[in-house]
Amino acid sequence: MTKEQLIACHNRIKPYIHNTPVLTSRLINTIVNADLYFKCENFQKMGSYKMRGATNAVMQLSEDQRSKGVVTHSSGNFAQALSLASQSLDVKATIVMPSNSPIVKKNAVKEYGGHIIECESTLEAREAASNAIVRDSGATFIHPSNDLDVILGQGTSCLELLFEQSDLDYVFCPIGGGGLIAGTALAAEYFGNNCEVIGSEPLEADDAYRSLKSGKIETNITANTIADGLRTQLGHHNFPIIQKHVKQIIRVTETEIIEGMRLIWERMKIIIEPSSAVAFAAVLKEKEQFKNKKIGIIISGGNVDVNNLPF
Amino acid sequence: MTKEQLIACHNRIKPYIHNTPVLTSRLINTIVNADLYFKCENFQKMGSYKMRGATNAVMQLSEDQRSKGVVTHSSGNFAQALSLASQSLDVKATIVMPSNSPIVKKNAVKEYGGHIIECESTLEAREAASNAIVRDSGATFIHPSNDLDVILGQGTSCLELLFEQSDLDYVFCPIGGGGLIAGTALAAEYFGNNCEVIGSEPLEADDAYRSLKSGKIETNITANTIADGLRTQLGHHNFPIIQKHVKQIIRVTETEIIEGMRLIWERMKIIIEPSSAVAFAAVLKEKEQFKNKKIGIIISGGNVDVNNLPF
Repeated sequence: MTKEQLIACHNRIKPYIHNTPVLTSRLINTIVNADLYFKCENFQKMGSYKMRGATNAVMQLSEDQRSKGVVTHSSGNFAQALSLASQSLDVKATIVMPSNSPIVKKNAVKEYGGHIIECESTLEAREAASNAIVRDSGATFIHPSNDLDVILGQGTSCLELLFEQSDLDYVFCPIGGGGLIAGTALAAEYFGNNCEVIGSEPLEADDAYRSLKSGKIETNITANTIADGLRTQLGHHNFPIIQKHVKQIIRVTETEIIEGMRLIWERMKIIIEPSSAVAFAAVLKEKEQFKNKKIGIIISGGNVDVNNLPF
Repeated sequence: MTKEQLIACHNRIKPYIHNTPVLTSRLINTIVNADLYFKCENFQKMGSYKMRGATNAVMQLSEDQRSKGVVTHSSGNFAQALSLASQSLDVKATIVMPSNSPIVKKNAVKEYGGHIIECESTLEAREAASNAIVRDSGATFIHPSNDLDVILGQGTSCLELLFEQSDLDYVFCPIGGGGLIAGTALAAEYFGNNCEVIGSEPLEADDAYRSLKSGKIETNITANTIADGLRTQLGHHNFPIIQKHVKQIIRVTETEIIEGMRLIWERMKIIIEPSSAVAFAAVLKEKEQFKNKKIGIIISGGNVDVNNLPF
């Protein structure tokens, strides 16, 4: 994927997304002893950067494909993102969700116009259900992270960040399925000035850390982390990009995630989800390494259940 | 207090405060059926508009007065505001706080450089303690809301809002001690274009509503509201301004406050305190009256104890 393709993607999706603000906090800079620039995708439409990739993927479909709709399986932010992106572009979106998904998540998908198909809570059941829809309706399956158009779309967040702060030494982002960091790595390569991308993961779901070490895609066994967006695993499209561009992944404990989240809530007065706190927690944990540096942090989203907070 | 005084005040305090952002939300506009402009004092220094009035009050002191320091009694945002404003201006601030104030509030005052004197948790004890400090040290007492310089400072938030959105039909703000709404009323009078200021109060602490009806300052007996910043009562400086300029006060229930707060947290991804939610809850409650209007809302602050949320 080239620099030109990334720029074209940004121009394509611009009318359908927010150019989210970049916030700073003097207090947090003092704590970390570095200059932090928070790219606030929690203020993105539907509350997450996933809107970018979903929008690009739907826009890249042919007229014929659009007329037959799109399908994905997700119970998280991508379900909402694909629903809203499709609604904006007048395309039918079908979302395969486990029947035990929280009501609040099902309602959010419905609110954005997505059609829900329920299934058992296993990967096999989800895939079977999506395959059946693809077969029966001719809809196009769009993967939440292992899809080149999705990866390109996710990269536009870092692109906007670097347009605003071109001299960042590092950009931190969390790793779940790998779509965000792959896109971020491309944006940093093309638009950064020796800008290094650093990944962060919960110790409880450190498949990317282990994959980078072993050279092949590793899986998570339990993924028992509060950072629910990061429980998924790498794919064959994004892993090679990560291997090529990402040299360091920092792992953090559940306590570090919650304390990072609390610090941002209390000091910056913005709501970020636990997955976003993972990137900040990584800077906080290894602050000696990043002293006096200019650091971008992709705040990936702000969708939390306020009835179920870790504080 | 004249238009020129308000402008001079704004120019005076500008280097010490943030020009806070004005945010909008399409989703919330759809719910309310009006255009809402949120003036986000939750992003103000120390997390509340109180920074404005405190800064102005300290800056208006003579050199001799500054050298002797300032004192106030507060366990809320004004305690932190006077501490930080004084620290910025190299003035000693003494804060009289009830000994049973939460540790988190005492720590915040200390963090901003305030010196705490503890006393019993009665108004008499607080006043006695502040009077003793004034007598012994020559410090100047600054009231959190019933002070002309404080009122003028608080008015600069609405002034900035009207600089950005000059054609607002209404500005909503919560009423506690009355400093914010008195300043807001002056700003709307001088810089608005037939802009009406509407107050909002918890039903549990509706002293301003009753005072406006009876024509004299009424008191709250229990003030058993989650909106802790609004439990205090009007003063003789701000009440006449409110009587002159404020025609309507809308009262909301505790449930309405919490639901308003939840809506803003969930939809706008910003942290606002219950007192701020009171103003938004008032718009929500009486939305038929304000249909299709352009409405400013002063989000007064964002200092909440995340360990003690109402959700």
